[in-house]
Amino acid sequence: MNISNKQYTTIWLNEDNQSVSVIDQRILPFKFEILSLKSTEDVFNAISDMTVRGAPLIGVTGAFGVWLSALELVKANNYNLDNLKKEAEYIKSSRPTAINLAYAVDRIMAKMLDSSDTVSIALEEAEIFRLEEIENCRLIGLHGVSIIEEISKKKQGETVNILTHCNAGWLACIDYGTATAPIYEAFNKGIKVHVWVDETRPRNQGARLTAFELGEHGVPHTIIADNTGGHLMQHGMVDMVIVGSDRTTANGDVANKIGTYLKALAAKDNNIPFYVALPLSTIDMTMNNGIAEIPIETRSEDEVRFMEGVVNGEVTKVRITPENSNALNYGFDVTPARLVTGLITERGISKADKLEIAKLF
Amino acid sequence: MNISNKQYTTIWLNEDNQSVSVIDQRILPFKFEILSLKSTEDVFNAISDMTVRGAPLIGVTGAFGVWLSALELVKANNYNLDNLKKEAEYIKSSRPTAINLAYAVDRIMAKMLDSSDTVSIALEEAEIFRLEEIENCRLIGLHGVSIIEEISKKKQGETVNILTHCNAGWLACIDYGTATAPIYEAFNKGIKVHVWVDETRPRNQGARLTAFELGEHGVPHTIIADNTGGHLMQHGMVDMVIVGSDRTTANGDVANKIGTYLKALAAKDNNIPFYVALPLSTIDMTMNNGIAEIPIETRSEDEVRFMEGVVNGEVTKVRITPENSNALNYGFDVTPARLVTGLITERGISKADKLEIAKLF
Repeated sequence: MNISNKQYTTIWLNEDNQSVSVIDQRILPFKFEILSLKSTEDVFNAISDMTVRGAPLIGVTGAFGVWLSALELVKANNYNLDNLKKEAEYIKSSRPTAINLAYAVDRIMAKMLDSSDTVSIALEEAEIFRLEEIENCRLIGLHGVSIIEEISKKKQGETVNILTHCNAGWLACIDYGTATAPIYEAFNKGIKVHVWVDETRPRNQGARLTAFELGEHGVPHTIIADNTGGHLMQHGMVDMVIVGSDRTTANGDVANKIGTYLKALAAKDNNIPFYVALPLSTIDMTMNNGIAEIPIETRSEDEVRFMEGVVNGEVTKVRITPENSNALNYGFDVTPARLVTGLITERGISKADKLEIAKLF
Repeated sequence: MNISNKQYTTIWLNEDNQSVSVIDQRILPFKFEILSLKSTEDVFNAISDMTVRGAPLIGVTGAFGVWLSALELVKANNYNLDNLKKEAEYIKSSRPTAINLAYAVDRIMAKMLDSSDTVSIALEEAEIFRLEEIENCRLIGLHGVSIIEEISKKKQGETVNILTHCNAGWLACIDYGTATAPIYEAFNKGIKVHVWVDETRPRNQGARLTAFELGEHGVPHTIIADNTGGHLMQHGMVDMVIVGSDRTTANGDVANKIGTYLKALAAKDNNIPFYVALPLSTIDMTMNNGIAEIPIETRSEDEVRFMEGVVNGEVTKVRITPENSNALNYGFDVTPARLVTGLITERGISKADKLEIAKLF
């Protein structure tokens, strides 16, 4: 997608064939900077300090990390599979709970041999993995756009208003995004769309990242407080909701950023379609009751107590609560399948229902 | 209620009998300062710059404003009813949409005569009005506490977890508050309570004011992002919801701070009682369909785009969104009566239902 009229992905191989570039997502939307990752250490830091974030991007960064580790070991005349395994484990430890980081690193490691000839295989595999992730998002966009097209036809070409929560955008992926893929596809096809961007407290991924990427690509959008969606739906100002998912159970219960459940309730109460866009790799076929089974991470209360923004060109954190009040910060909630109109995947659109989901695999 | 172990109301007559004191609510919770209002101009500014806020407090401040205007005119040897009327209109113009400011000013003006003897009547009437507002809140507390007591008994004395949205606390009133009155009453009686305080974006009245006043009075509480309530309710962590109201229709539709509707939906979905605490003066008997009839104010988008907090002891505003993204800021939403378990008023608890509400009057 575009930033300042130039096409970007979130990670790419540099022309030197010795490093990859990533967008520094910690300082978006206040500053736009590209960082070069040249070593295992660079990759470890970029993942752990959230220069890169979003499950697909973390995975692909880890995959390139294995290649960079191998390159470093070869340069130091120290390459063998045992040494590479140590580096791979180190990369995996940069975000221990990110399941697809481990998956990505292991996937590249499975191709590696004791001979340093395999360094080029690591690069090839990482690039294939990157392209697969892009393709999954592209296909989600192609399937999902049909829903937007249908609403657009019903509205006789009037603007389709889509509400989204958090950032399931191309910045979290490599390109297109998940929830945003159908939106970009519609926009690129010339269908009139407008996106209501939930701010998404406490980390503000909507206000910071989704608004930034939509704005840079030229997609009309408006930022709203998370409290606002229900009112908009009551007044016919939302035609559909599309969100992403961090984990979805075999029966279609959807774990996503905290607050998603409230929007699903409001959509149901106002007969507005509520879609979840996700690659099949997000579906956990071992679970059948999201509320009971999906573990929900609690994060630092300081994410609620402090807010980061920019003043006089400086990125600054201010405390927004009384000094002595505690806060509690759950990262995700679970939207029961009964509130989900459908799942948009790379293999098509499915009902959020055990039998229908099984057919996708 | 208490601040630093000292009992306060939000407005009181000073010992000099020439001025009133108010708490500067613009800088809470970062700083605690008392301001003295000595003139019409002081009152106008305090209301228009939101030193005082909350419908009941604005009304009482306006009432004392009429007295201060009269005092000033007498001192300037310029007292007559025509001159006083001009001052009264000026005070009313400080927040033109605050219906009960106009009501309060007109109420005092109705007692005033052309003779400057009536200055003492103005003071007496303003003080009566102030005490009535306190008494209404006290009675809301006495009626509402029965609901908390019942839940406490069912839980065999375990902590009752109450979620509230925005600030319908004593800071918005003169004492006790509306939504908080039953909570303070329960706490003062020794019933174990804990309050989930919705941050309440975009103006953060929950994180700033409700957390402050509960904390200073010693009531256990935890601040949460507005997105969090649904998850807490799904997991049995909320026993009841109490909110205030800006306007409630004859059939029980409740206009309150934006986001209230989303919490009401979640309460309904999880079988959690959802109460609205309000004085009868908030009920608009001329309206019967809240969503269609109650006008909802849009406020400056900068309330969404900027966030105020404290850094290095300085109150500072930071921009939290991309420079070129727009925001939309609705102040209130309407919760349909079907989602409301009951209304807690100074005359008792009523169903949110046309016949039951009519019986209160």
